[in-house]
Amino acid sequence: MRPSGRALDELRHVTIETGVTRHAEGSCLIRMGGTHVLCTASVEDKPPQFLRNTGMGWVTAEYGMLPRATHTRSKREAATGKQSGRTQEIQRLIGRALRAVVDRHALGERQIVIDCDVIQADGGTRCASITGGFVALRLAINKLREKGLITSDPILDHVAAVSCGIYAGQPVLDLDYDEDSVAGTDGNFVITGRGKLVEVQASAEGAPFTTADLTALMALADRGIEALVLVQRKALTE
Amino acid sequence: MRPSGRALDELRHVTIETGVTRHAEGSCLIRMGGTHVLCTASVEDKPPQFLRNTGMGWVTAEYGMLPRATHTRSKREAATGKQSGRTQEIQRLIGRALRAVVDRHALGERQIVIDCDVIQADGGTRCASITGGFVALRLAINKLREKGLITSDPILDHVAAVSCGIYAGQPVLDLDYDEDSVAGTDGNFVITGRGKLVEVQASAEGAPFTTADLTALMALADRGIEALVLVQRKALTE
Amino acid sequence: MRPSGRALDELRHVTIETGVTRHAEGSCLIRMGGTHVLCTASVEDKPPQFLRNTGMGWVTAEYGMLPRATHTRSKREAATGKQSGRTQEIQRLIGRALRAVVDRHALGERQIVIDCDVIQADGGTRCASITGGFVALRLAINKLREKGLITSDPILDHVAAVSCGIYAGQPVLDLDYDEDSVAGTDGNFVITGRGKLVEVQASAEGAPFTTADLTALMALADRGIEALVLVQRKALTE
Amino acid sequence: MRPSGRALDELRHVTIETGVTRHAEGSCLIRMGGTHVLCTASVEDKPPQFLRNTGMGWVTAEYGMLPRATHTRSKREAATGKQSGRTQEIQRLIGRALRAVVDRHALGERQIVIDCDVIQADGGTRCASITGGFVALRLAINKLREKGLITSDPILDHVAAVSCGIYAGQPVLDLDYDEDSVAGTDGNFVITGRGKLVEVQASAEGAPFTTADLTALMALADRGIEALVLVQRKALTE
Amino acid sequence: MRPSGRALDELRHVTIETGVTRHAEGSCLIRMGGTHVLCTASVEDKPPQFLRNTGMGWVTAEYGMLPRATHTRSKREAATGKQSGRTQEIQRLIGRALRAVVDRHALGERQIVIDCDVIQADGGTRCASITGGFVALRLAINKLREKGLITSDPILDHVAAVSCGIYAGQPVLDLDYDEDSVAGTDGNFVITGRGKLVEVQASAEGAPFTTADLTALMALADRGIEALVLVQRKALTE
Amino acid sequence: MRPSGRALDELRHVTIETGVTRHAEGSCLIRMGGTHVLCTASVEDKPPQFLRNTGMGWVTAEYGMLPRATHTRSKREAATGKQSGRTQEIQRLIGRALRAVVDRHALGERQIVIDCDVIQADGGTRCASITGGFVALRLAINKLREKGLITSDPILDHVAAVSCGIYAGQPVLDLDYDEDSVAGTDGNFVITGRGKLVEVQASAEGAPFTTADLTALMALADRGIEALVLVQRKALTE
Repeated sequence: MRPSGRALDELRHVTIETGVTRHAEGSCLIRMGGTHVLCTASVEDKPPQFLRNTGMGWVTAEYGMLPRATHTRSKREAATGKQSGRTQEIQRLIGRALRAVVDRHALGERQIVIDCDVIQADGGTRCASITGGFVALRLAINKLREKGLITSDPILDHVAAVSCGIYAGQPVLDLDYDEDSVAGTDGNFVITGRGKLVEVQASAEGAPFTTADLTALMALADRGIEALVLVQRKALTE
Repeated sequence: MRPSGRALDELRHVTIETGVTRHAEGSCLIRMGGTHVLCTASVEDKPPQFLRNTGMGWVTAEYGMLPRATHTRSKREAATGKQSGRTQEIQRLIGRALRAVVDRHALGERQIVIDCDVIQADGGTRCASITGGFVALRLAINKLREKGLITSDPILDHVAAVSCGIYAGQPVLDLDYDEDSVAGTDGNFVITGRGKLVEVQASAEGAPFTTADLTALMALADRGIEALVLVQRKALTE
Repeated sequence: MRPSGRALDELRHVTIETGVTRHAEGSCLIRMGGTHVLCTASVEDKPPQFLRNTGMGWVTAEYGMLPRATHTRSKREAATGKQSGRTQEIQRLIGRALRAVVDRHALGERQIVIDCDVIQADGGTRCASITGGFVALRLAINKLREKGLITSDPILDHVAAVSCGIYAGQPVLDLDYDEDSVAGTDGNFVITGRGKLVEVQASAEGAPFTTADLTALMALADRGIEALVLVQRKALTE
Repeated sequence: MRPSGRALDELRHVTIETGVTRHAEGSCLIRMGGTHVLCTASVEDKPPQFLRNTGMGWVTAEYGMLPRATHTRSKREAATGKQSGRTQEIQRLIGRALRAVVDRHALGERQIVIDCDVIQADGGTRCASITGGFVALRLAINKLREKGLITSDPILDHVAAVSCGIYAGQPVLDLDYDEDSVAGTDGNFVITGRGKLVEVQASAEGAPFTTADLTALMALADRGIEALVLVQRKALTE
Repeated sequence: MRPSGRALDELRHVTIETGVTRHAEGSCLIRMGGTHVLCTASVEDKPPQFLRNTGMGWVTAEYGMLPRATHTRSKREAATGKQSGRTQEIQRLIGRALRAVVDRHALGERQIVIDCDVIQADGGTRCASITGGFVALRLAINKLREKGLITSDPILDHVAAVSCGIYAGQPVLDLDYDEDSVAGTDGNFVITGRGKLVEVQASAEGAPFTTADLTALMALADRGIEALVLVQRKALTE
Repeated sequence: MRPSGRALDELRHVTIETGVTRHAEGSCLIRMGGTHVLCTASVEDKPPQFLRNTGMGWVTAEYGMLPRATHTRSKREAATGKQSGRTQEIQRLIGRALRAVVDRHALGERQIVIDCDVIQADGGTRCASITGGFVALRLAINKLREKGLITSDPILDHVAAVSCGIYAGQPVLDLDYDEDSVAGTDGNFVITGRGKLVEVQASAEGAPFTTADLTALMALADRGIEALVLVQRKALTE
C-alpha cells in the first residue's frame, strides 16, 4: 500500500557511518533510505557573545541542501544571497532539539556547531539531520572528554527525530518523498532515548486532523525513535 | 499563582476592533492583554506565479514587529536588510493556518495578503496574529462577495490560535511574556471552529515533557479556542 | 475648492494621543486627518560610536510605513531587503529636524531613537512624523529628568512641520493625498515654536515656481506651525 | 574673510570641459574649484516600465563618489553592498532637477541616464552634478536631434544649482568644504536659466535661521546661477 | 622530502566514483588524496537568456565548500549572504575550462550546470572540481544522447586540471595543503586529453619566478594530466 | 592587419600623469590608448586585523568601472548591491601583483589601498590598473619616506602588466577591445622590472592553444613590460 512497500510502522533502512570527514571533531553520514545527510560537529573555543562569562556553552546548527540533492536542481542559497525561510526554520529546530539533551553548564564556555548538509533528499531531511546531528555531537564531546577539557558528561540523553503522517487515510511512520508530497497531515517528532518529548510539530496540509490522529502518529513515532536510538548506539560503539 | 492573577485556564482580556484602517479590504486590531496586533487583508487581482491558470487562489501572510513593541528596542528589520529566522517562521505559520480553512478553488485566481504588525508585544504575538488575521481575511472575502466577484464562500470554518505551556509546574492557558520567558514547555495550537487541529507545535524549553503534559495543554487549548472564536464572531457581526 | 472642502489656510483635524504604547519611554499617535503615525522614543544608555567620550548625546529617527497604510499594498521593506531612497531621505530629515531643537551637551552621552511608523497614509507623513516625534521625544526627556538623569532641560524649543503647495493655482496649507498627487509645487517646512526656520524644502513637481510663490507658501506654513504647536502643548499637558 | 579669500558673492573658478569620454552620448567634466565631477548621459531605447506605451520618456540620475575623492578614503559603496542614504538623496535630487526642464512628451519613449561621478570633492558636489549633468543631457539630446530621432526640442530651459550658506555670520555664495563643514545654515538652490525656482533646500546645521536669512541666500543664489548658466552656454557652443 | 613522501612528479592517489547521487543526470565523487569533491551535472531545458534562439547551449559551474571541509570551520556562504571573491573566481574558471571542450552548437539550446561541492579539502579543490566536473558532464551528455535528444557528440576532448608549484625550491606535481600553504610559486594547469592548453595560471606567492620555472611546472602538469585522463576514462567505462 | 594599424609587437600610446587628485597620498591617470584608469593610493595607519602585532603591512586593491566607461552603459555595482565575480577577480589580481614587489616588513604595520577606477575602457583595464597602480603606490611610499615614517624602501622592484593574445592567428601585444572581443587566446602577464614573472594567466577563449603559443605570447609580453617600465620611470621622475 505504501509506494515503497513498507509496513505502516516500518522505518526505511537506516545506517549511520561515523568518521566520514577528516577535519571535524565529530562527523557522520546518516542514510534514511534515499535521504543522505552529512553531519559534522565543530568545536569552537568561545561561546556566542550573549554567553560570555556565564560559565555556559551553546550548541547551534546550520542546515544546507546541495543544489542537486533534489529531483530538479534548486538554486544555491549562497548564490541567491540568503537562506530561505524553510532553511532557517529547520536549522533553528535542529539546534533546539540538540540543546534539549545538553547540560550547558557541564559543556562549559564553548560552542559546538552542527552542520547538516543534505547530499541527497528523499523526504525527512530535518529528522535525519537531528538523528545524525546527535551522533556528531556525541563524538565531538567524547573528544573533549578524552582531552580532559570537560569533566562531567554534558549529554543527558539520546535524542532522535522521525516524521509520521496520514497517507492514504492511514497513519504511517517515516514518510518518504512520494508519501510526503501527498500526505494530508504531516508531523515531526523529536523524542529522547527515555521516550520524553522534545518537540512535536504536526500540520494539516489539507483537511484539519483530530486529536485521535495525533495520538496515532505519536504512537508510531515512539516506535520509530526506539529503533533510531538503537542505530545511534550501534554507530557510536563501533 | 500566575503573575497576572489569572486562573490556570483563563485567557487574557481579548478584544477585536474591526475597520481600523481606511485602505485595506479587511482590517482589525486584536488585543490579547498587552499584545496588540494590527491585521490587514489586501486583495490582489493575480495569484502568485505558480498558480497562474490553475483556477486557484492563495492566501499568504507577512509578519512584522514595530521596533519598540518590546521591552527594549529591537532593530528594524528593514534597516538590517533581512527578516530574522523567527519572523519568517512565524509568517509561514500564519499563512499555513489561514489556508487550512480556505477553499482555494472557491477563492479563484487571486491572492489575499494578510499583514500582521505587532504594535505592542506581551507574549503570544503569533497566536494573536492568526486569530486576528482570520477576521481580516473574513472581512476582505465578504467584500469580494458583496461585489459579486466570488459566488460560493471560500471560508470553510473559523480558525484561531492560542499558546499554552507548563508554568511553575502547572499547565496554563495563554502565556503572557512573564510566563513565556520562564515556561518549561511552550506550545502553540491552531484549531478550527469545529475543534479540528490545524497545527500543533510544542517545544521543551528546558526539560523534555511527557505525552500527558501535551494532552493537558491540548485540553486547555480547546477551551481557549472556543472562547476566541466567540470573540471573532462578535467582532464580525457588530 | 479643495477636495476636502477646507479653506486654503486650514489644517486638517489634528489630534495627538500620548502614552499609546506600554514599553517606550515616550510615545504618541498623531492623526492629521487620514494620516496616522505612531511615534515612539527609545532611550539608549550609550551614544553612537562617534560620540563616545565627547559628553554629547544624539537623537536619530527611523521611519517606516506599514504595507497597507496606502491605497494599494506596498512591499514590506524588511522583505525586499532594503529601505528605499524615499524612506532614508525621510528619516534623515526627521532626525535633523529634532536635533535642531536639542542641546546635545545637556542631553549627555545617550541616544534617543525616534521611530515613526505610518499606520495609515493620506499625504504629509513626514511632517506628521516630525510633529509627533517631537512629542515622543519631549516625553522621553521628561522621564529622564524625573529620574534625575538629566539636570538641565536639553529641549530648546518646540519644533513642528507642515506641507504647503500650489494646488489648482492657489497656495494651500497641509496637502492631503488628493492634493499632493496633483500639486504643481510642494514644500515641507520645519519651524520652531518661536517661528525660526529649521528646514525648508520646496520642489517643482511640474513647472518651476517663483520667489513669490515660495513666500506665499512660507506664510501659510507659519500659521500652520502655530496651530500645530498648540496641539503639541495641549497633548503634553493633559 | 572666507578661507579662500573669495568675496561673499563670488563663485569658485568654474570650467566645463565637454566630450571627455568616448562612449557616452553626452559627457563633460565640471570643475568648481576643487570639486571635479564627471557627468555622462546615456541614451536608452526604452523608458522605464511604468512609462511603456505612454509616449513619454524619462530622465534619471545616478551619483557616486570615488573612494579617494575625499580627505580620507571612504568605503566603496559597491563593496559595502548598498548606496548610503546620502547618495540616494542626492541622485533623486539630480533627477528631479533635470526633469523639471524637460518636456517628457517631446523626449519620446526613451530614457536618459545621467551618471555623476565625483573624482575630487571640495564641497558642493550635488550642485556641480546638476550643473554639469545639464550639459551632458543637452549634448545627448543634441545627438538625438542630429540623428532625427527627436523633432522638437524637449529641453525647455537651462538649469543649474549652487549652494549658499551662513558662514561666520555672513551669507556667502558657493560654499567650499572648509566653509561647508562649519556653516550654521546651508542651502542648495536649483534655478532655471530664466530665474525660476526648481528646488530650494535650506537646513539649519546649528541654530535655526530666519526668513530674512533665506531671502539673503536666495539673492546670492540668483547671481550664482546667472554666472553658471553662462559657463554652460560657453561650454555648449565651443 | 615532500611532507607526504611522494616523488616530485607523483600525483596523490586519485579515484573517481560515478553515479553517487540519485537525481543528477551525471554525478561523481572525485578523491585526490584528502580532497574530496562531489560533482553533479544538471540538465536544464533552456539556455540562459543571452542564448535564446541562437541554436547554442551553455555549460556553467557553481562551486561551494561545506563549512567543515577545512581544518577550522569556515562560515557558510549562504549565511553570510554572499559568495566570496575566491568562490566566484573558482566557479568562473571551472565553467571556462569545461566549455573549452564542448561544441555548443552540437549541445543545442540547453544548459548544463555543474555543481562542485567540496566535502573535504586538502589543497587543489579547483583542479579536482574540473577533473571530476568533466566526468559528470560526460555522463549527463551520454544520457542526452541515449534519449536521442542530441545526435552528434558535443564533447570534443577530455579536459582535466592539476596544480604544480615550487616547494622547498623544487618543482612538484599536485600540491596538497601542507605544500600549498608554503609554496613560493603555485600554478593551475587545465589541459585537454590531446595535451593542448586551456588555461594556465601561475602566481608568485613570494618571490617572482622565471620562465624556466614555468616551463618546469608545465612539464610536470603534462604528466599529471595524462594520468588524470586515464582515471577519467576508467571511471567512465566501468 | 590589426584594426588599429599597429605592428604585432607594438603597444598602444601610453601616458601616465601623476598627481591628478588632491587628497590621495599617491595618484595617477594612466592612458593606454582608449583605456583610461585613475589610480589612487591611500595610506591607512593600521593594517588589516589579521596582521595586528606582526610588524608587517598590507597592500590591497579595489577596482571599479564607471557605468559609462563602456560602449553601452553597464549597471552601477553600488546600485545592484554587489561586485561582480569579474570585479572581484580583477581586484584580487591587482593586489597580489603589487604585493609581489613589496617588502611588507619594511612597510611596517600600515595598509595601502590602491583604488583603480576605469574612466574609459578599451580593453586591458586590469593590466593598466596594475601598471598605474604601481606608480600610485610608489608615490605614496615616497611620501611616507619623506615624512620619515619608513626608513628602508619597501619597494623591491617595478611591476607592470600587459595583455597578449592570438588575434587572426598571430600573436599580438596589448590587445584593444576590438581584438580582445574576438581573440582565440588571451593572456595577462605581470612582470617585474628585472623581467621576473609575478603572474601568468592565459585562457583559450575558443580552441585550446599550444605551449609554443604561450612561449610566443610571453616573448611579446617581455618587450611590452620593458617599455611600460620606462613609462613608469619617466612619470616618477618628472
